[in-house]
Amino acid sequence: MKAWEGVIAAYRERLPLPEETPAISLLEGNTPLVPSVALREALPGDLDIFFKCEGLNPTGSFKDRGMVVAFARALARKASVCLCASTGNTAASAAAYAARSGLRCIVLLPEGSIARGKLAQAAMHGAKIVSVAGPFDNAMRMAQELVLQRSEIELVNSVNPFRIEGQKTAAFEVSEALGDAPDFHFLPVGNAGNITAYWKGYREYAEVGKISRLPRMVGFQAAGAAPIVEGRIITDPQTMASAIRIGNPASWKGAIAAATESGGWIAAVTDEEILDAYQFLARREGIFVEPASAAAVAGLRKEADGGRIPPGSRIVVTLTGHGLKDPDVAARVAAPEPIVIAPALAELLRAIEA
Amino acid sequence: MKAWEGVIAAYRERLPLPEETPAISLLEGNTPLVPSVALREALPGDLDIFFKCEGLNPTGSFKDRGMVVAFARALARKASVCLCASTGNTAASAAAYAARSGLRCIVLLPEGSIARGKLAQAAMHGAKIVSVAGPFDNAMRMAQELVLQRSEIELVNSVNPFRIEGQKTAAFEVSEALGDAPDFHFLPVGNAGNITAYWKGYREYAEVGKISRLPRMVGFQAAGAAPIVEGRIITDPQTMASAIRIGNPASWKGAIAAATESGGWIAAVTDEEILDAYQFLARREGIFVEPASAAAVAGLRKEADGGRIPPGSRIVVTLTGHGLKDPDVAARVAAPEPIVIAPALAELLRAIEA
Ligand SMILES: Cc1ncc(COP(=O)(O)O)c(C=O)c1O
Ligand SMILES: Cc1ncc(COP(=O)(O)O)c(C=O)c1O
Repeated sequence: MKAWEGVIAAYRERLPLPEETPAISLLEGNTPLVPSVALREALPGDLDIFFKCEGLNPTGSFKDRGMVVAFARALARKASVCLCASTGNTAASAAAYAARSGLRCIVLLPEGSIARGKLAQAAMHGAKIVSVAGPFDNAMRMAQELVLQRSEIELVNSVNPFRIEGQKTAAFEVSEALGDAPDFHFLPVGNAGNITAYWKGYREYAEVGKISRLPRMVGFQAAGAAPIVEGRIITDPQTMASAIRIGNPASWKGAIAAATESGGWIAAVTDEEILDAYQFLARREGIFVEPASAAAVAGLRKEADGGRIPPGSRIVVTLTGHGLKDPDVAARVAAPEPIVIAPALAELLRAIEA
Repeated sequence: MKAWEGVIAAYRERLPLPEETPAISLLEGNTPLVPSVALREALPGDLDIFFKCEGLNPTGSFKDRGMVVAFARALARKASVCLCASTGNTAASAAAYAARSGLRCIVLLPEGSIARGKLAQAAMHGAKIVSVAGPFDNAMRMAQELVLQRSEIELVNSVNPFRIEGQKTAAFEVSEALGDAPDFHFLPVGNAGNITAYWKGYREYAEVGKISRLPRMVGFQAAGAAPIVEGRIITDPQTMASAIRIGNPASWKGAIAAATESGGWIAAVTDEEILDAYQFLARREGIFVEPASAAAVAGLRKEADGGRIPPGSRIVVTLTGHGLKDPDVAARVAAPEPIVIAPALAELLRAIEA
């Protein structure tokens, strides 16, 4: 097995980059496609379910795939600063690649609603962190205004088309691992960059004959932050899945196109359903994800007996970020309160019997 | 590129397991070997440095490699409970594989010194968490006493030889990625299972001619928890690198053998040196690790001009766990205090100039 060299080296001919790209890769991509054991058993219809574990990218989320390509582009055009608005994962990823590339990094976060792990990453990687009052969409607007004035700054949000180019490589990997596209691809939707990117990736692979069919793309928003489902901007989006607390998705059109062109759909799941799926994954599959990632699993649990998914379908669910990103939600949900004992066998026996 | 199927499938012929192993893999292993950009530039001697990023295993540390093999064995002998004493990462890994395998999991942790992320993992994966007063070594002793009385319980600490068997696969991967063994292999040492496992892996690959030479194995303990360096049990080990806060290593002899047989050594680094290396990695390489993982990098920075490392040497450093495991140390070190602004461009410009 040849060692993995990162998404740019692996898919260079399908990425719009100059021949010479800098050595900034953290060897992102090449993430595991783990077969479900418990969910397939729990659901009706003998579904063939796989989890694309994007939390095993270098900074713990799928963002790294697109970020490395955005940085290759930023360096090629000699930008000296990178900027993003972020619910946390984009910031963590941008900060890491900025550190590796020697660029300055500025991240704009919605005030007071960033998971602890993501904030720690941005700070450790040396980003300048600015908290913008109000929801994410304020931060996004500020970022877009700033880059209009400063040509040395590269905006590395997913409105940057190089981000989408990088993220589409996950669809390539899924196709290669399975030998073809799945019947359905489920994923959570926030700014809708990722669903747009997967759909682009699958279409490109179909065009060149690497896959024989296209999957139906199925996206899930949190019920309190479901602008696409409701068909209107949500001015005060609410969900404990902070990564998808988005009221006005930047790639709204991309999500609609992916769903309609593929014969899929976008639906909503409640926070309660998300937390249920979050616990199911950890307790039964052995996979710990961040809450937003569980939205698509929650969606699959709801849809499995709803008549839209034929028995025997092959379904890939993207698990977008690692559970370690958000230890506070985990602590709230699983409440670890260790039993404290003295080092004596009798006490231990009592504790484990309890 | 064939999809990765986990360490058991990849290295079955070198693992002492029955033909039929259960489908418990989380597709552990196959972690990136990232070339250094900043450290090689910062150090004298034109060293060729690589980081084996074990934090990108499913539960965020190298422990998963050995755990999947230990669980395959536990299931083969029909154990129904797994047990470990742990500074956190072993517990997180055991809890995840127990969840996937349907086994009960009991973890014994030293009281009050477990990183937040690891505790969250053990709890989320449904382990029974027992906190044993005193240092790690008390928890370890309790675990060993308990399994003597209960044959249905499998001890999955690294004293379990199947753990070492699984962990040795990291040496196989390094050898394959580089085409041969490196000149030096650096890693942090706690219970010393990992250095023992790498050395076993390299020796096996040399025996079958897959590599043409053996690396020198160089291990680092924290100065306040350096029993091997000091040649005595440390009854009250101290270091903020909680993963290697060990006073009486279970594989003490294995570490000595690895160092002496390979022409390497075991040395100590201070907490200050560890934290410096921890920040260097995040700020300059773009790699966020947990503090214990930075010990070997701290060691390399000290040794590089000490005369023991010939110019041009190829050095692999194992980064054992992801930075997201321990967000509290990160917050203490990098102190993210976001500047809060109203959504107005003038305020943003002022903030980024500040
Ligand atoms: C963990 C996680 N899941 C899902 C999403 C949503 O992805 P997108 O904004 O591309 O729709 C994000 C975006 O931040 C995320 O961080
Ligand atoms: C992150 C990390 N690094 C290093 C070590 C030390 O490994 P070993 O105990 O095998 O020497 C551990 C063990 O818990 C660990 O979790």
